[in-house]
Amino acid sequence: MAFEKLKAAVWKANQDIVRRGLVQLTWGNASGVDRAAGVMAIKPSGIDYDQLRPEDIVVLELENGRVIEGSLRPSTDMPTHRYLYLHFPEIGGIVHTHSRYAVAWAQARRPIPCLGTTHADYFRGPIPVTRPLWPDEVAEAYEHHTGRVIVECFKTQQLHPLEIPGVLVAGHGPFSWGETPEKAVENALVLELVAEMALHTYLLHPEASALEAYVLEKHFSRKHGAQAYYGQR
Amino acid sequence: MAFEKLKAAVWKANQDIVRRGLVQLTWGNASGVDRAAGVMAIKPSGIDYDQLRPEDIVVLELENGRVIEGSLRPSTDMPTHRYLYLHFPEIGGIVHTHSRYAVAWAQARRPIPCLGTTHADYFRGPIPVTRPLWPDEVAEAYEHHTGRVIVECFKTQQLHPLEIPGVLVAGHGPFSWGETPEKAVENALVLELVAEMALHTYLLHPEASALEAYVLEKHFSRKHGAQAYYGQR
Amino acid sequence: MAFEKLKAAVWKANQDIVRRGLVQLTWGNASGVDRAAGVMAIKPSGIDYDQLRPEDIVVLELENGRVIEGSLRPSTDMPTHRYLYLHFPEIGGIVHTHSRYAVAWAQARRPIPCLGTTHADYFRGPIPVTRPLWPDEVAEAYEHHTGRVIVECFKTQQLHPLEIPGVLVAGHGPFSWGETPEKAVENALVLELVAEMALHTYLLHPEASALEAYVLEKHFSRKHGAQAYYGQR
Amino acid sequence: MAFEKLKAAVWKANQDIVRRGLVQLTWGNASGVDRAAGVMAIKPSGIDYDQLRPEDIVVLELENGRVIEGSLRPSTDMPTHRYLYLHFPEIGGIVHTHSRYAVAWAQARRPIPCLGTTHADYFRGPIPVTRPLWPDEVAEAYEHHTGRVIVECFKTQQLHPLEIPGVLVAGHGPFSWGETPEKAVENALVLELVAEMALHTYLLHPEASALEAYVLEKHFSRKHGAQAYYGQR
Repeated sequence: MAFEKLKAAVWKANQDIVRRGLVQLTWGNASGVDRAAGVMAIKPSGIDYDQLRPEDIVVLELENGRVIEGSLRPSTDMPTHRYLYLHFPEIGGIVHTHSRYAVAWAQARRPIPCLGTTHADYFRGPIPVTRPLWPDEVAEAYEHHTGRVIVECFKTQQLHPLEIPGVLVAGHGPFSWGETPEKAVENALVLELVAEMALHTYLLHPEASALEAYVLEKHFSRKHGAQAYYGQR
Repeated sequence: MAFEKLKAAVWKANQDIVRRGLVQLTWGNASGVDRAAGVMAIKPSGIDYDQLRPEDIVVLELENGRVIEGSLRPSTDMPTHRYLYLHFPEIGGIVHTHSRYAVAWAQARRPIPCLGTTHADYFRGPIPVTRPLWPDEVAEAYEHHTGRVIVECFKTQQLHPLEIPGVLVAGHGPFSWGETPEKAVENALVLELVAEMALHTYLLHPEASALEAYVLEKHFSRKHGAQAYYGQR
Repeated sequence: MAFEKLKAAVWKANQDIVRRGLVQLTWGNASGVDRAAGVMAIKPSGIDYDQLRPEDIVVLELENGRVIEGSLRPSTDMPTHRYLYLHFPEIGGIVHTHSRYAVAWAQARRPIPCLGTTHADYFRGPIPVTRPLWPDEVAEAYEHHTGRVIVECFKTQQLHPLEIPGVLVAGHGPFSWGETPEKAVENALVLELVAEMALHTYLLHPEASALEAYVLEKHFSRKHGAQAYYGQR
Repeated sequence: MAFEKLKAAVWKANQDIVRRGLVQLTWGNASGVDRAAGVMAIKPSGIDYDQLRPEDIVVLELENGRVIEGSLRPSTDMPTHRYLYLHFPEIGGIVHTHSRYAVAWAQARRPIPCLGTTHADYFRGPIPVTRPLWPDEVAEAYEHHTGRVIVECFKTQQLHPLEIPGVLVAGHGPFSWGETPEKAVENALVLELVAEMALHTYLLHPEASALEAYVLEKHFSRKHGAQAYYGQR
């Protein structure tokens, strides 16, 4: 009977990734975290979204991954989510999908450059691609290591998770995140849309250049940080 | 209690750009003008379209941008709209979206050539791309300067706003307009569709040639001006 | 009060081209013919499809184009339809759309080759492109001359209208037809779908070869003519 | 009055391929088999899906193809399905569609390589393309020979039908299968989605490399076989 609010938010995020067209079959999962309580909540594995109820959401201890609420097995991608929560303390929600244009970039193993203001409004620079996992990382604790290569990618490139709220795992697909599960869904949608727009831009102009840095900064800061003036805040 | 009709038209235009699939999230805005009263009306910033009510539409003085009706902040793109109304006296409505194919052309920074009669029925020639804004234009009064580069583009290329009712802002996306907000929505849709068709045409034939000038003129004049014979007029 | 059945069939065909996603705005029209009565029926010009009622369908004499039923002006493309009915005596319905992939091929001015059985089930060979119209053909009786270049294309290439039930007008878009308005709608949809599939085939393999002639014949004859064995006949 | 359950499952599979967007017009059919009873059930030929009732499903003897229930003619593709059931004893359901991206690959006559984990979760390697049929194979018992080239393709390449649950027939389109009709539908959808993703991957990177073999194995075995740990089993 605890964590009703967290489970409701995670349940809604899992519904929204389907409604937004980001998920086919059971190819996606959303999670959320309650930092104060030290728990995370995530979709159960392989369950159809239209049969998913808020009470099916699995709650586990962030520290050790032990399930504390829910009778179903958590998503197989749970260890990836958990690793990200442990290493990106700023984030409150995570979404993983196999949305089609983002997957195409992940399969091509190309970072998505910032080609326009749509991208700059949400991502302060290119959306990176991780390195591939090595055989031993795949053989054991695969999903845990998927989280590790994401964090390694951000450390190596000195990226901040709330400035670049998403990543492409090489040969796999996108993960996105945000302050809340709801924000993670929004960033998953944006990632898919800019992936589509960027593909079409390259078809029109294979040498298309990145958005001017000063426009990128302007747009990102219109929506984020102390100088933000977009919306009704 | 004034401007009910203007606000209703602007509200409907904002609903229609969503219904037509031109807008995701809050990425778009429509406005309208009452020339006699010297006011314009526009969507408030960052509000979800399904929660938007006609009374939320913000009304402001065209001359100085002062809000005279509505308790919400106007769209951040308001200064762009206002600049266009002040310099294109023929137009009565403006629409800005991040529709995906139009954005791809804007990001590729290529004008959309007139390749067929679908285009010629609405645009009397290529849909131009503005120059990029300079750093100082972005640093201060960015949205105002976005309007300025659009008007500069039309002046330089000697284009008439009602003959070419739309433009691509480089690295950003499309703006379109018309005699009314309703017409601006229609032109936004047409711009997106011809952007899609033109991309696919180039994929089939990278050297595709422009529509013969005499066919372009024929089609544009079938629908516009004294010789028009399309529809029930 | 005559021609109720013809008008109902034409009205339904006009609804179906919208429902099938072949038409945006008012960019399409369907017509039908009653050979015994010497009349054709067509959509009125520039009317929204959701406001169109069966009684709005315009009936005119096939021989001279004189309106005999209906208070609205017929589609501006009426003379094209009429010319086709007069020169293709086998056909009973015509559909014109600006469906997006077919328009891309028309703008690229490339015939759609028969690359697979989907195409061969409906079209016994490539879907041809007309020559462009000359200036004098555009200046006067433009829509009549559009019909003429279609018929010229079929005569020159010795094509049979019921074996190749559609065409691309260069720089414009597709016309399709069939024994009935309903069949013309079906062929318009097939034309659009094979245009999409063929574009993607070329992106995967720019030198993709045409379907073997003996497979083409097999598939066309499975559905058409004395040897047909598809369906419940 | 026998085979109610089989007919219901086959009827549902035929509805689902439409609902999933894999089928336009009547371009698709699903079937199922009852191995114990030695019968298969399939959609009747050329019937609209929205008029199809469970009792319209045709039941025939697997051994000789003789119809034993149903008053309509079976799908013209029935002999292909029957041949596959006779030679792939592991499978319980088959789906044939003309889904658009899969057809594009079939027309380009390229196997779909395994470029990512979406593919590897369902197909343990590339999705193969059959050889074209020879003239005499098309002239007589065409649909039977279509089944034969599929089986030949799997024998030659030493593929296992439940590890590669689908194929592209050259110049035609996809067939997929699974332990049940429901699984065959799921594999048909996956085949279409990976076809789309793979096309876009190649547009971004024409030399994109296949997924590392050890990742492919990991993903396939997460969902299949004794080591599977995906879902709630």
